[in-house]
Amino acid sequence: MTNLNDFSNKLKEEILKAKSIAIISHYLPDGDAIGSTLTMYGAVRKLNNAVTALRSDTIPTFLKFLPLIDDLILYDEKSKFDLAIILDCGDEDRLGSKKSIIKNSKTSFLIDHHNNNPLFANYNYVDNKASSTCELVFDIVKLMGVSFCKDMAFSCLTGILTDTNRFMYENSSSSTLLKAAELIDTGLDKDYLIRNLYQKTSKQSFLINKILVENTEFFFDGKFAFSYISNEDLNKVGATRDDLDDKISLIRDIEGVEIAILVEDRFDELKVGLRSKEYVNVSELARRFGGGGHNKASGFYYKSSIIDLKKDLMKEIEIILNENK
Amino acid sequence: MTNLNDFSNKLKEEILKAKSIAIISHYLPDGDAIGSTLTMYGAVRKLNNAVTALRSDTIPTFLKFLPLIDDLILYDEKSKFDLAIILDCGDEDRLGSKKSIIKNSKTSFLIDHHNNNPLFANYNYVDNKASSTCELVFDIVKLMGVSFCKDMAFSCLTGILTDTNRFMYENSSSSTLLKAAELIDTGLDKDYLIRNLYQKTSKQSFLINKILVENTEFFFDGKFAFSYISNEDLNKVGATRDDLDDKISLIRDIEGVEIAILVEDRFDELKVGLRSKEYVNVSELARRFGGGGHNKASGFYYKSSIIDLKKDLMKEIEIILNENK
Ligand SMILES: [Mn+2]
Ligand SMILES: [Mn+2]
Repeated sequence: MTNLNDFSNKLKEEILKAKSIAIISHYLPDGDAIGSTLTMYGAVRKLNNAVTALRSDTIPTFLKFLPLIDDLILYDEKSKFDLAIILDCGDEDRLGSKKSIIKNSKTSFLIDHHNNNPLFANYNYVDNKASSTCELVFDIVKLMGVSFCKDMAFSCLTGILTDTNRFMYENSSSSTLLKAAELIDTGLDKDYLIRNLYQKTSKQSFLINKILVENTEFFFDGKFAFSYISNEDLNKVGATRDDLDDKISLIRDIEGVEIAILVEDRFDELKVGLRSKEYVNVSELARRFGGGGHNKASGFYYKSSIIDLKKDLMKEIEIILNENK
Repeated sequence: MTNLNDFSNKLKEEILKAKSIAIISHYLPDGDAIGSTLTMYGAVRKLNNAVTALRSDTIPTFLKFLPLIDDLILYDEKSKFDLAIILDCGDEDRLGSKKSIIKNSKTSFLIDHHNNNPLFANYNYVDNKASSTCELVFDIVKLMGVSFCKDMAFSCLTGILTDTNRFMYENSSSSTLLKAAELIDTGLDKDYLIRNLYQKTSKQSFLINKILVENTEFFFDGKFAFSYISNEDLNKVGATRDDLDDKISLIRDIEGVEIAILVEDRFDELKVGLRSKEYVNVSELARRFGGGGHNKASGFYYKSSIIDLKKDLMKEIEIILNENK
């Protein structure tokens, strides 16, 4: 459906008649995935108590302060529901092994903001201009006639803040700010939210900054910055993968850098994060390696060595930067 | 004056009848000082062409992208004006040697948001709950019936963003967001603004992160983080003082840290920056050392050695942390 009002009406209709409702978002969840799940959960509960908030993966530590976070239940891959509301998934594989929920549900609704979404649910509302799924959920909740309580607003603002990097990304508009203002006016504790999201950097994450400086290399007149933090690097300072969260921004934000890449170890593969600043579409670059994402923030997994990866990337990036000269 | 409407009316009256008008802000100017100067300059020009935008110091590199920045003239300490509009100055000493402008002007207006402002102008509007002087200027410009052009909005949003740390500080409220939304809706290039403010970190500033990690010490169960970046440290990576901008936030944002202090060399003294996270008022602490500022962001200059400074600070901070147990 392309009309938000029709979509919201249909969703409300299905919520009211369903005997069991599930809400779920993607694995490796971020603030928008969990924030939109909890916001929608709060809203649906006001319409129909037969609702379960699901998770498809472990909740990252930095989101554990969210209200109602303990209500999230790991989906067991077999449970059946009348209605599934799927949030923030650019395709069904983002649900991993939990994508069985689609066929295990009589009706499925998808709300998302990723590029090239194949619209895999029965009813799909995808707007890749929206800053976050939370921003779409904000509109849909209001169109369903449900008012925001403090807890819903708290989770919704979390998703907006994390997906816009505090309103700094291009996807953030004046209407994003107006929504945030309205959410704050529910009386939520904004300063507590911000302390938890942005002022609880672990000491290990701080220590990683030193390694990041040591490992970052610059190519093509400083337009491309490449960094790799290995498991050994993490071990050196007692850090975990969570401590690498958003380190890639520190590289992207360097003057002159257009493409920033940060590579991390995963069991038998490499996790490659990509960011661009102004004119390069890194989701295209990620797609060439089997990944995806947004124009200026994307990623993929790589099965060979860091040396091969760097060689492959250098080739592609040289072409991209030449095209954009 | 405590009524913003009366203040704005009086200011407009004086602007309309003055034969010469000066607008000035503090030395070591920040985004709010320059942003509010340029916003007010844009507004006054629409009412009376006999206006000069002044500066009391050098413009920092990171603000040179602002529209009309080249109109700012260094005040020569002798020029006389009918009307002086003084912005973002917590006391008259913030004008340094340029405070002669107060006696060199027939009428002076002050607009500010610092604590304990002694109200040193003829007409004063000081609101320490405002996030920024730019936020006050936003209201005053509108009350004077002047509409925001893109350039004014651009400078005004710059001051709001820098003084609120992108809406993250406690001084930022839902009304701050509403104002920002209104400024963005003038059609200003928000992404260009953000790239210039936050994505132009110098390579040297990035390299300093390594030294910051090496030099930071933690005391009192990690509640107090202390760091010192000497001129030698700067030289090591070819950095300048500008490259230390906002490094103190990286320390404050570490989990458990309540008070963060970053010390820098100045010719024959030390510049001491103080930040707190939740419950400590560092402007009180700064005042004990002859400085000042805001509750959670303040500073002072220190005339003795770094060893003496650390000893003095440890004593005071132990008391403060015990009081707040
Ligand atoms: Mn999202
Ligand atoms: Mn200010």
